[in-house]
Amino acid sequence: MSDGMKVSVLYGVHDVRTETRPVPEPGPDEVLVRVTAVGACGSDVHYYEHGRIGDFVVKQPLVLGHEPSGVVVANGSRARLHEAGQRVALEPGVSCSRCAQCKAGRYNLCPEMRFFGTPPIDGAFCEYVALREDFAHPIPDALSDEAAGLLEPLSVGVWANRKARVAPGSRVLITGAGPIGLVATQTARAFGASEVLVTDVNARRLAVARELGATGTLDVSRESLSESAFEPDVLLECSGVPAVASGAIRKLGRAGRAVLVGMGGDEIPLPLAHVQNSEIEVTGTFRYANIWPTAIALAAGGEVDLDRLVTHRFGLDEVEQALTIASRDDSVIKAVVVPRHG
Amino acid sequence: MSDGMKVSVLYGVHDVRTETRPVPEPGPDEVLVRVTAVGACGSDVHYYEHGRIGDFVVKQPLVLGHEPSGVVVANGSRARLHEAGQRVALEPGVSCSRCAQCKAGRYNLCPEMRFFGTPPIDGAFCEYVALREDFAHPIPDALSDEAAGLLEPLSVGVWANRKARVAPGSRVLITGAGPIGLVATQTARAFGASEVLVTDVNARRLAVARELGATGTLDVSRESLSESAFEPDVLLECSGVPAVASGAIRKLGRAGRAVLVGMGGDEIPLPLAHVQNSEIEVTGTFRYANIWPTAIALAAGGEVDLDRLVTHRFGLDEVEQALTIASRDDSVIKAVVVPRHG
Amino acid sequence: MSDGMKVSVLYGVHDVRTETRPVPEPGPDEVLVRVTAVGACGSDVHYYEHGRIGDFVVKQPLVLGHEPSGVVVANGSRARLHEAGQRVALEPGVSCSRCAQCKAGRYNLCPEMRFFGTPPIDGAFCEYVALREDFAHPIPDALSDEAAGLLEPLSVGVWANRKARVAPGSRVLITGAGPIGLVATQTARAFGASEVLVTDVNARRLAVARELGATGTLDVSRESLSESAFEPDVLLECSGVPAVASGAIRKLGRAGRAVLVGMGGDEIPLPLAHVQNSEIEVTGTFRYANIWPTAIALAAGGEVDLDRLVTHRFGLDEVEQALTIASRDDSVIKAVVVPRHG
Amino acid sequence: MSDGMKVSVLYGVHDVRTETRPVPEPGPDEVLVRVTAVGACGSDVHYYEHGRIGDFVVKQPLVLGHEPSGVVVANGSRARLHEAGQRVALEPGVSCSRCAQCKAGRYNLCPEMRFFGTPPIDGAFCEYVALREDFAHPIPDALSDEAAGLLEPLSVGVWANRKARVAPGSRVLITGAGPIGLVATQTARAFGASEVLVTDVNARRLAVARELGATGTLDVSRESLSESAFEPDVLLECSGVPAVASGAIRKLGRAGRAVLVGMGGDEIPLPLAHVQNSEIEVTGTFRYANIWPTAIALAAGGEVDLDRLVTHRFGLDEVEQALTIASRDDSVIKAVVVPRHG
Repeated sequence: MSDGMKVSVLYGVHDVRTETRPVPEPGPDEVLVRVTAVGACGSDVHYYEHGRIGDFVVKQPLVLGHEPSGVVVANGSRARLHEAGQRVALEPGVSCSRCAQCKAGRYNLCPEMRFFGTPPIDGAFCEYVALREDFAHPIPDALSDEAAGLLEPLSVGVWANRKARVAPGSRVLITGAGPIGLVATQTARAFGASEVLVTDVNARRLAVARELGATGTLDVSRESLSESAFEPDVLLECSGVPAVASGAIRKLGRAGRAVLVGMGGDEIPLPLAHVQNSEIEVTGTFRYANIWPTAIALAAGGEVDLDRLVTHRFGLDEVEQALTIASRDDSVIKAVVVPRHG
Repeated sequence: MSDGMKVSVLYGVHDVRTETRPVPEPGPDEVLVRVTAVGACGSDVHYYEHGRIGDFVVKQPLVLGHEPSGVVVANGSRARLHEAGQRVALEPGVSCSRCAQCKAGRYNLCPEMRFFGTPPIDGAFCEYVALREDFAHPIPDALSDEAAGLLEPLSVGVWANRKARVAPGSRVLITGAGPIGLVATQTARAFGASEVLVTDVNARRLAVARELGATGTLDVSRESLSESAFEPDVLLECSGVPAVASGAIRKLGRAGRAVLVGMGGDEIPLPLAHVQNSEIEVTGTFRYANIWPTAIALAAGGEVDLDRLVTHRFGLDEVEQALTIASRDDSVIKAVVVPRHG
Repeated sequence: MSDGMKVSVLYGVHDVRTETRPVPEPGPDEVLVRVTAVGACGSDVHYYEHGRIGDFVVKQPLVLGHEPSGVVVANGSRARLHEAGQRVALEPGVSCSRCAQCKAGRYNLCPEMRFFGTPPIDGAFCEYVALREDFAHPIPDALSDEAAGLLEPLSVGVWANRKARVAPGSRVLITGAGPIGLVATQTARAFGASEVLVTDVNARRLAVARELGATGTLDVSRESLSESAFEPDVLLECSGVPAVASGAIRKLGRAGRAVLVGMGGDEIPLPLAHVQNSEIEVTGTFRYANIWPTAIALAAGGEVDLDRLVTHRFGLDEVEQALTIASRDDSVIKAVVVPRHG
Repeated sequence: MSDGMKVSVLYGVHDVRTETRPVPEPGPDEVLVRVTAVGACGSDVHYYEHGRIGDFVVKQPLVLGHEPSGVVVANGSRARLHEAGQRVALEPGVSCSRCAQCKAGRYNLCPEMRFFGTPPIDGAFCEYVALREDFAHPIPDALSDEAAGLLEPLSVGVWANRKARVAPGSRVLITGAGPIGLVATQTARAFGASEVLVTDVNARRLAVARELGATGTLDVSRESLSESAFEPDVLLECSGVPAVASGAIRKLGRAGRAVLVGMGGDEIPLPLAHVQNSEIEVTGTFRYANIWPTAIALAAGGEVDLDRLVTHRFGLDEVEQALTIASRDDSVIKAVVVPRHG
């Protein structure tokens, strides 16, 4: 570790450089983790393309990557949860633990959250990261390194299902079959949903959705959701397209719940009369809280298949390719950066 | 009763006539009630002005009025809950009791609901009505006839507060100080809210709001809500104005809840990024279920003052005046039709 | 139907007789159903052995049997939900639909509940029964007649899991591997529980529990639960043995939930200090409400195997054997009465 | 502060000594607080009388006192929430912020909780204490020092009411009119309960209960609760007497909730059949979490009167008298230790 580590750094729009930086020193409550795999997320792509997401602006060189797995290599002075050699999945945001949100169990809403790859906090497209020990979650042998990284998007899907109170018998509509839609689909089934209809405009992704448990799919480039006979009691909106979100909420039956996961724009048209007449509950999700153990149980138990999502792999020198492959190849579901790759 | 009863009937837009009709016969499970007071609601005014509300269209003569109190005068053959002479408040919608919504305790969402004054079901602007006995709620002497009628709008306010999980310590924003906003204000205080800010453009109504328990008011014709320092955790939207609703949702703090009570238009702009980043919960209300006993307790216990809302009274011959007074006199809060009046 | 039907009637302790009675006439809201299978339940056995359960005493001849499936053969004058020939599972208790409990969605707590085979209401050990149409639930072809009957005990298990808020990741302890324990086990897995430990003193039943999804079993005739390392967050108590219930509650981890399903005696010792220090939630179940559609989805989707539970079958003339087989043969899991059997 | 501070120390059963100790140094995240008032609690008395409570044993000299208010006099190096001179109420337990319970918002169940006056953690019967800054809650001028100290028992009462979901219209039974029963009574009313029946054997305390909002009282030394016509939907058990707890649970109506607050013995007899037949929910409370802001709002808003509870005051040299007064004088409700007293 004394020789420094390789890091992929975003310097600005379309400007990613590989550098050598010192291996971080873990703080007293932190573990030092050698990174084994990091998923590339749509938000990483967005920073690469636009240099910002909403109010979060890349003003100084930033390391992206917030879907990491790794192996513990050292403990900070007070850290005691893990031993060296422990394989871990990293929950990539550290909250303050002191504010009203943290104390109420909603640490995802902590105003002082420090989240990997979100300006100005560096992420995990590098060889080593340090993290508060309680955000490193041990994983069983059953999980591959890549699957362990993808526990992060899985957690988004589990959180959405939990917010929506999906349970045995639920009829679930999932709009959008990207990585989040696909983990939400699998999770909905694991929560007991008896029907899961997935919509997208990409037939290939819809085929994967069926393979992963969707009981039905709808290619909305060819058929209209509004004419479908399906009456869901839950909507997990994963497309981020305002018109899709609005139309899907209109499909919900009485006392239905809509969880808006997909990001996209500042406003969507909310069908007020329908929301009132059917007392629809609408909410949005912001990351997740206290969800990693459940996500690990689902993935380790085989109820959710994360490896199936990984279609492309890149080394740390190839992060730019990982961030651009989706725009060049529509067979991409998920690209993963593997530091020891190639 | 053999001589028939006086009834006020809406024949069409701006066409209200007083007629004589037979006193209704109570069905086996019904009570026959002599009406003592009936509040005039904005929806009654809307039918009078437009002949419809959304999909509900006045196609045949309709008796309006769904905020009635009365006295039981006879029981149907199987009815046994009340004795003649019992003063009652009438919950003005009878559900089927058999569908999934009814059985789940959400009878307000029953697709076969028969609701007073909603086409084609006649309401209570008349001398006698028959109603399933379990929807007639006994009231204590502490409640006036007029207050008993206004348990109906109070129930709307209680339902909204319950949906919003208002509790001791809550900071509540109420947009709109009409009758619903004013009962919502009082109820929020009765639920323990420590701060209740009410907004409107009518200074007179805001003064009543303060009198009834609002801890603050904001005249949004003069000051901007968006610049207020108040950060609510609950919004009870009672204005029905899309821009007000949207702006008010933006004021909510993390994990805030918005309940959309005011009707108005088919869509409102939902601030998606805020709903996601702060995990705001948004829902609408459709009437109420299982709320009358609580409403009676609040009104009888003095926690809510309904009599204060009654500013005008009319007889059955004067229903048209009751429905038009609000457009002629901005001191109106609530007009009540009293069959024996005048 | 004009020739009467065969009925098995309990005349008193150890006194069951087969009779001919008129086929019932369905009331206006009822369906007439030809019974195809009826599970024999421990409470049927209890009435046969003791003539009473608590305050419910057999004072006049009583038809037992409350786990029936059948085929609709006729509709009452107002019934319109089903067509003749529809296969149905019968939810065997009809509530009043009018009281506070019914209206709140807790119809299982209706004080005027009329429940099959509970004095003085006759049950389904006969060829035909009439039932309010909304308590007859259509079943898909995937479900056998016998499985459809066993939706009743399954509903008990689903209700218990719902009360306990079992969800993905839950660690569940189930004490007792009788029919209820076995359906609770399967349901816990269907709700996503990652660990389900089942205890009993009957090794054969524990083997079936493992076959049906238990991740572990404990033969408490040989090993002590208190010494087990398992720390559940949910207990589903299905043994009805006070000492078992009490000891199992002590095993629950912080914020654990105990649902007491097994009946047995008037009191159990509640470990107060543990309940307080760990803020354990304890509740009991009484039948179920609004659970049939979920139970049908679980059984039809293959998540729960009900046919596996049926070990013995008897005709209407053999009800006494169905009620006594368990005391003579410890391989019994579930005996079913099949009117057309033999 | 350089001259040390006065401290009251429990050396063993019936052995309290006043000493001089160094004023504590606040840690980096702590505030140093000059203590202004500290309530004496029944658990303090228990340690004084018995040297232990359950598994918590006084093995070394211990400072009691966990109901303190004070004034901030210094900040630790990283503390920034308060300024010197700020009046505060102290939430007297500091949790680890890292474990599953803390992260889930249940920090009261943290296994590493360090709680004032619970072996081996020193409490607040002294002149100065240091505490993590986020557990010091600013209080408004409206609250006296003594009332601010009594926010601690109030929090117990608020937590119990919240666990029991007391709301407008609730009918609440409170068994025991000691300090906790009396704050629970006031809180139940503040939560909107329409009926609150309080039982005790001390007529003087029952009179105080009525004064503070109880709508009824029952002297169970003279009348039997079991014969009362009152049917509560909530029980807040504050007596700690097993037979009282058990009998009171039997009074609960269908779907009732029992919260066991009073400590006393390892087990109570749980009326199983009633808990099942009426689906009663039973739970216990262990301190509180996230409740101080609500408690402050209730006390500052006048909904709860804490000063009324203070019947006796003692200086730091008189802690032993504070701990024994209750056994000598049945007019005691609450004794408070005031360091600058006398």
